[in-house]
Amino acid sequence: MEKPLILVTNDDGITAMGIRALVEVACEIGEVVVVAPDSPQSGMGHAITIHNPLRLHKSLAFDQLEAYECSGTPVDCVKLAKNVVLKDRKIDLCVSGINHGSNASINIIYSGTLSAAMEASLEGIPSIGFSLLDYNHNADFEPCKPFVAKLMRHVIKNGLQEGSLLNVNIPNLPGDEIKGLMVCRQAEARWIEEFQEARDPRGQKYYWLTGKFVNDDHHSQDTDVWALDNGFISVVPSKHDLTNYSAIPALKTSLNNHAI
Amino acid sequence: MEKPLILVTNDDGITAMGIRALVEVACEIGEVVVVAPDSPQSGMGHAITIHNPLRLHKSLAFDQLEAYECSGTPVDCVKLAKNVVLKDRKIDLCVSGINHGSNASINIIYSGTLSAAMEASLEGIPSIGFSLLDYNHNADFEPCKPFVAKLMRHVIKNGLQEGSLLNVNIPNLPGDEIKGLMVCRQAEARWIEEFQEARDPRGQKYYWLTGKFVNDDHHSQDTDVWALDNGFISVVPSKHDLTNYSAIPALKTSLNNHAI
Repeated sequence: MEKPLILVTNDDGITAMGIRALVEVACEIGEVVVVAPDSPQSGMGHAITIHNPLRLHKSLAFDQLEAYECSGTPVDCVKLAKNVVLKDRKIDLCVSGINHGSNASINIIYSGTLSAAMEASLEGIPSIGFSLLDYNHNADFEPCKPFVAKLMRHVIKNGLQEGSLLNVNIPNLPGDEIKGLMVCRQAEARWIEEFQEARDPRGQKYYWLTGKFVNDDHHSQDTDVWALDNGFISVVPSKHDLTNYSAIPALKTSLNNHAI
Repeated sequence: MEKPLILVTNDDGITAMGIRALVEVACEIGEVVVVAPDSPQSGMGHAITIHNPLRLHKSLAFDQLEAYECSGTPVDCVKLAKNVVLKDRKIDLCVSGINHGSNASINIIYSGTLSAAMEASLEGIPSIGFSLLDYNHNADFEPCKPFVAKLMRHVIKNGLQEGSLLNVNIPNLPGDEIKGLMVCRQAEARWIEEFQEARDPRGQKYYWLTGKFVNDDHHSQDTDVWALDNGFISVVPSKHDLTNYSAIPALKTSLNNHAI
C-alpha cells in the first residue's frame, strides 16, 4: 500500500522543537512534506498575505526530507503547499504544531497553528492542530508522541466530518500521568488584557500586549480546559462555519426580515 | 438620556472612505470614538501583535472627534480601545468597516473587519461588521447609510445574544434597488487559489496570492451569498465558538473516549 502523504506545518517557525517532534512522528506513518514559516508567527490567527509577495525556499532544517520555509503566515504556508508545492498530489493529512503553549478554548481564534489546520480543512484535507501546554523553548515533546501518532493514524484511517478539524491540546505531564484522550467542546474562556505601557529609547510611548486567561466555564466537565486541568488530552472537533444558528429566529422576527 | 458610546474601527486603515461613512452614521446616533489601524490591514484575520510593541497616537483624520491610529491589527485596535483608550467607560456598541469588498461566507475568517467585531463581542460589547461589495477606493457608501443606521439603532436598543456579532454585507446597488435586510447563514463557499509566480528585479522568485471565489452552496436560498445575489443586505449572526458539536458523538465512540 502507498504511504499516506502528510503535510506538516506550524506557527512557531520551521526551526522550533515542536515541529521537529511532529515530523518525527509523521515520518513513522507516511511520506512527509514540510512547509512552515521561516520565522515565528504566533498569534497570527487566520491572517493571509495579500499586499506583499511571498518567498518560498527549500529548507535544510530537516535531513533527507522535502521541506520548505515560507516568508508568510501559517495559512499562507498551507495555501502554497496545496497550490504550488504539492499541486498535483492528494494530501491525506495536514498536521500543524506541535505548538509551544495552549490553544485550548478561545485561543483557537488567535492561533496560527490552528488557523493553518483550519485552512487545510477548508481545502478538503483532514487536519489536526497539536499543542503542548509548555511555552518553554526546550519543552519535552516525548511523552505526547504516542498520542499524537494515535490521532494521526485515526484520522488517516477514518477521516473527519467534512469541514471539521481537530484541536488537540496536551497537558504538560509525564507520559504515565496522562489519563487519555477526551473529546470535548471549546470552553467559554477569555483573556483579560493588560497593556504594559513604557517608553522607548527616544522617549516615545509604546504598549505591549499581555493578559490573563480566565475560564468562565469552570463548572462544566465537558470542556477542553477541564480535560487539561484533569490530566486528559483534549480533542475538540472544530469548524469554519461561524454562523450562530440559535440566534437566527429571534433576529428574523425583530428585524422584520424581508426575504422569502 | 445619555448618548450611547460607539467605538468605530476597520481594517482598511483610518483614512479609508468606508470608515468615514461609518463615522458619519455613528455620529448621528451616539458619542463616537475611533481607534483604527494606521495602515491597511486587509486579510489580517484575528491576528494580534505579541512579539512587538504597539504605537497608539491621536489622529487628525476626523474633525472634532476623539480618534486614534494604531500600528497594530484590527484586533489590537479593539483591545487597546477597551483596555487603554476607554478603560473606565462602558462601550455600548462597536462597529467595524465599512469594508471595501465582501466579507460574506468564508471571508469572515480572513477578514480583519469582522475579526475586530468578533474581538469586541468577546469583550462583551455588542458589535457589527459592515462590508460593501465594492472594492473601489471611491466606492459610494451613500445608498447603504440608512440601513447601517437602522442596524446600529437596532443593536443598541435590543442587544445581541451573548457572544454574538452581526456580519452585515451590502450589495453594490443604488439605494432604491436594495430590497431590504435578510437574516441568513454563512454560505459554504471557498476560494480556489492561484499563485502568480514571478521574478523580482534581482531574479529571485516570488509568489503573489490571487484566487477565485466559488460558492458550493448555490442551491440554497438561506445563505448570505444568495441574499446578496438577489439584492438583499445579508445579516449573519456569528459567534466565536468553533466547536463542531455535531461531530462530537461519533468521535467519542471512535476514539474510545476515556473521560467521565
